[in-house]
Amino acid sequence: MDEFSLLTLLAVLASAWIGGLISKRLGYPAILGELIIGIILGPALLGWLAPSGMIDILSEVGIILLMVHIGMEINFKDLGKASWPGLLAAIGGFIVPFILGYYTILHFGGTQMSAIFVAIAVAVTSLATKSRILVDLKLLNTRIAYVLMAGALISDTLALIIFAGIITYIDVGDIDTLGLLWVASKAILFFIVTTLIGIYLLPLLGKYLRKANIKNRTLHFTLILILTFGFSELAEIAGLHSILGAFMAGLFIRDGIFDRQVSKEVNNIFHDVSIGFLAPIFFVSSGFHVTLDVFKTDLSLFISVIIVAIVGKIVGTALFYLPSGHGWREGITVGTGMNGRGAVEIIIAGIGLKMGIISNEIFSILVFMAIFTTLTVPVFLTWTTNWLRKRGELVEQDTRKGYLILGANPLGLYIAEILNQENEVTILDANKEMLTQAQQKGLKTIHGNILEEETLEDANATEKQTFIALTGNSEINLLAAQLANDTFYIPQKIILFSPKKNSVNAKMLDKVDTFTMFANKTKLQPWVNKIDNKNFKEETLDATQKITAENWVESHQKSNKNVLPLFIVNKEGKKRLFHNKESIMPEEKVIYLT
Amino acid sequence: MDEFSLLTLLAVLASAWIGGLISKRLGYPAILGELIIGIILGPALLGWLAPSGMIDILSEVGIILLMVHIGMEINFKDLGKASWPGLLAAIGGFIVPFILGYYTILHFGGTQMSAIFVAIAVAVTSLATKSRILVDLKLLNTRIAYVLMAGALISDTLALIIFAGIITYIDVGDIDTLGLLWVASKAILFFIVTTLIGIYLLPLLGKYLRKANIKNRTLHFTLILILTFGFSELAEIAGLHSILGAFMAGLFIRDGIFDRQVSKEVNNIFHDVSIGFLAPIFFVSSGFHVTLDVFKTDLSLFISVIIVAIVGKIVGTALFYLPSGHGWREGITVGTGMNGRGAVEIIIAGIGLKMGIISNEIFSILVFMAIFTTLTVPVFLTWTTNWLRKRGELVEQDTRKGYLILGANPLGLYIAEILNQENEVTILDANKEMLTQAQQKGLKTIHGNILEEETLEDANATEKQTFIALTGNSEINLLAAQLANDTFYIPQKIILFSPKKNSVNAKMLDKVDTFTMFANKTKLQPWVNKIDNKNFKEETLDATQKITAENWVESHQKSNKNVLPLFIVNKEGKKRLFHNKESIMPEEKVIYLT
Repeated sequence: MDEFSLLTLLAVLASAWIGGLISKRLGYPAILGELIIGIILGPALLGWLAPSGMIDILSEVGIILLMVHIGMEINFKDLGKASWPGLLAAIGGFIVPFILGYYTILHFGGTQMSAIFVAIAVAVTSLATKSRILVDLKLLNTRIAYVLMAGALISDTLALIIFAGIITYIDVGDIDTLGLLWVASKAILFFIVTTLIGIYLLPLLGKYLRKANIKNRTLHFTLILILTFGFSELAEIAGLHSILGAFMAGLFIRDGIFDRQVSKEVNNIFHDVSIGFLAPIFFVSSGFHVTLDVFKTDLSLFISVIIVAIVGKIVGTALFYLPSGHGWREGITVGTGMNGRGAVEIIIAGIGLKMGIISNEIFSILVFMAIFTTLTVPVFLTWTTNWLRKRGELVEQDTRKGYLILGANPLGLYIAEILNQENEVTILDANKEMLTQAQQKGLKTIHGNILEEETLEDANATEKQTFIALTGNSEINLLAAQLANDTFYIPQKIILFSPKKNSVNAKMLDKVDTFTMFANKTKLQPWVNKIDNKNFKEETLDATQKITAENWVESHQKSNKNVLPLFIVNKEGKKRLFHNKESIMPEEKVIYLT
Repeated sequence: MDEFSLLTLLAVLASAWIGGLISKRLGYPAILGELIIGIILGPALLGWLAPSGMIDILSEVGIILLMVHIGMEINFKDLGKASWPGLLAAIGGFIVPFILGYYTILHFGGTQMSAIFVAIAVAVTSLATKSRILVDLKLLNTRIAYVLMAGALISDTLALIIFAGIITYIDVGDIDTLGLLWVASKAILFFIVTTLIGIYLLPLLGKYLRKANIKNRTLHFTLILILTFGFSELAEIAGLHSILGAFMAGLFIRDGIFDRQVSKEVNNIFHDVSIGFLAPIFFVSSGFHVTLDVFKTDLSLFISVIIVAIVGKIVGTALFYLPSGHGWREGITVGTGMNGRGAVEIIIAGIGLKMGIISNEIFSILVFMAIFTTLTVPVFLTWTTNWLRKRGELVEQDTRKGYLILGANPLGLYIAEILNQENEVTILDANKEMLTQAQQKGLKTIHGNILEEETLEDANATEKQTFIALTGNSEINLLAAQLANDTFYIPQKIILFSPKKNSVNAKMLDKVDTFTMFANKTKLQPWVNKIDNKNFKEETLDATQKITAENWVESHQKSNKNVLPLFIVNKEGKKRLFHNKESIMPEEKVIYLT
């Protein structure tokens, strides 16, 4: 069993990739296709592939790296800000299916332990397709997206905490009070020790590396691997499962510990090695352990678990969501969005199977449950959001908020003032005089070299939604956008792109996911002069049909009108910036200068 | 044996890391420390660690990924340009120890097969510490470095070709002519098929991905993994070893197939996962298979192999190097530089051990041989290069050649003209008029936007040694240096850094490994005017003591002299550019404008 088989590895990886690809094409997460292809090619159906020692070992490494990655995605600060509604949804969507799942298994004669494992699996939440489905349904900047994200993260954390408790409990065997106390203290000690290491030792290590100016990516990668396996081993020593150690390691390896750039690159490696290599091997091989007999032998249990999972999750979420005051309809929508099960569920089910706590039949049911619930998400969520949208109850909310505007020139100030009516705007410049003018207009200002990280840090760049660079120098604008993107992960970057010949090009903007302000190459100075001399007019123009921002500009250039389109205003009067990737819809209008 | 053991994994990885770190601190490659720590902690000495199924499987994956990485490092173009001396050194340093090694084993009563395996192991070359040792010994821009690099690459390729032949041969068993023909054809077919895929199918795939604008790093990583395992499996089917498939896959995944940026990121992942994670596991576990008994039982064989390896390599290299006309002393120097054995040797020895072709004793001897020969490199090479240096026979030569200067302004032209006396200079600008002036001065010119990849490609940027950006706009200079670094891997980048307040900062230069021209923030215009009006003098100043370029500038600023240091000239009259990371040695002088 412990032989290395290249053919198996190739077959599993290639089928994982094909399954994942099809799944993603259909708008589902890759894990769905990986599980299904594992069931199809595995012993359950075709029997072409089967579990092996090698696959097991690579899966184990894959799970650990995946848990690090999951931990890395969770940010304590985000959890802290997760807001009341997110917490309510997460708890409701967890507790209700947990209790229902637990009693369902007991009802069908399962052991208490297996009931608890099923309960966790049913209770867990996975954001079925992360941002993809939110983009497809145009939900990214709604309160629902915000609650969903926070809810899934809290749910993962909750699931792992309860899992830790149960794993501890299993360890006890004959439960006497003293034994239980000892086992519980070990587990608690584990969390205390890892937290202390994470909070005190890791930053020291990071500081040392930064001081010594060590930016070797490979070194950081190896160090973090060793740390991960070390935490995992600590978890095992404490009687917990290694995934908890890996998760804790991931939690603490975040922004600010190591050099930002190196951190990001190492995170990418963890992402690719887990999501792009080892985790798919685990998910496909999970399919190998599935048996189709459950459809005959345990059909009623099967149906009950699926119903409990879906109904429990949606109703539970909606019920607990009521105190948020956002209404039961939004609660149900959030519930449908949280209905997916994914990586964490399969990992926990796999551990249960391996430890002999749940049977092959129950494991199979849990895998099918992951598949079914994930399948429901896009369907149900489309229904519920359309329902909300029709009722006008889709509330917008950004996870990141506010604008960062680079360049306190008259045009920058003009745009800042308008944006400031609805959002917080911070304006950056190296020129103090210009900033004084901005302050007089009631804008928040930061003085400093805008190509220095410190300046952007002072401006709270990690919490901003949009970065706008409006200096007359395209290169400075681009370099600043690079910083905003690479170091502060600001989602939206829009820069003024001057028509100078020998300058930055569109490809360079694409690389850092940056848009062109005004959807056209623009000279700053003429507009600055116009605004200075008050020799301009602000006008609005209604769109009669859908038109891209670039075509809008083109049609105006043809008629030789020199206009500067600033905003697109939707029916509700909400403004968004006019840039080259925007489109104007019917019933919307454009605010422009002339 | 096929159990996943977290503790073992942690112990092996952590000890590999510590061993590698110590080794690197002492100026040796990490593999040396990894082998030694494996011997110390393994059954041979302390017995704390031992081989296991898990370690084996992870090692196998590690070897495959490492072979891809080794293949990626070899560039057909470089091999083609490897030059006559490099080829001579590689062949001489291969054949002589190969033959000596072969007969040594036969003499000691070994089988023909084991003799061939030892022969390859003895013949192989590893650049002991890659560029590190070359930097330490200040050899980077010498002909020796160039020959060493080319020699090591050719030797790797040679070793793998012969290995392929032998593996094929082993497969035959009872050798009849028809059987041999069949086995040989399969092997040849493998190389034809993989080459055809590499030359025709892969570029098509790359083109498709680029056309569809698919730049997903994870997708590329998974694809290349599947390709690698596919090639490896093809090799196995053809009766060869999987490492040959992985090597072929690595050879063909090079620049130009996929998007440059994505390619580079995926290469980084292969590098880190192999060098930073799985390969060290293999090297440490190689130490587990070593037995110290050889010092008692096979001491004379042991000593013979070591002597054959060292003397055969150095003498063989020097001998075959004679026709190059570079003298026997340079030949010996190259021989001492090529004396290290490393990854490829240990991989081949490991395969021999696994296949039962070589005994544990011979495997141990080969591991110790790798350790000893690697240890000799810095010592011997220091002696021989000092010897050459004293005799004034250390010839300079760059693997990449020539300068790329951005900015055809008068200062740029002035510097270009001087550099052009000794090296090829290409000057880039978006301004055609200025380029006409450059052409009149006999300079090679390229017209185009210097921030577009195409312009740099036209200028053959991948083959240049130094990139100089001398426009008055620091941001353009920096963006161009980014491109030169990230996309064209130009080793030396030096840019004019203007003293404007709100601009690029030193940290941004560091990120792309770029130096400051003139070792000081400099305004372009005053010097352009001076040169235009012929209102300047070129002067030289001898250095009396070692001084950094920055201190040199500072001392002149104190005395209020406005000077622009251009070059440092060494005793031999060779000029190098004056930048912030340079130092002026005694007996050197500085050429500056005033």
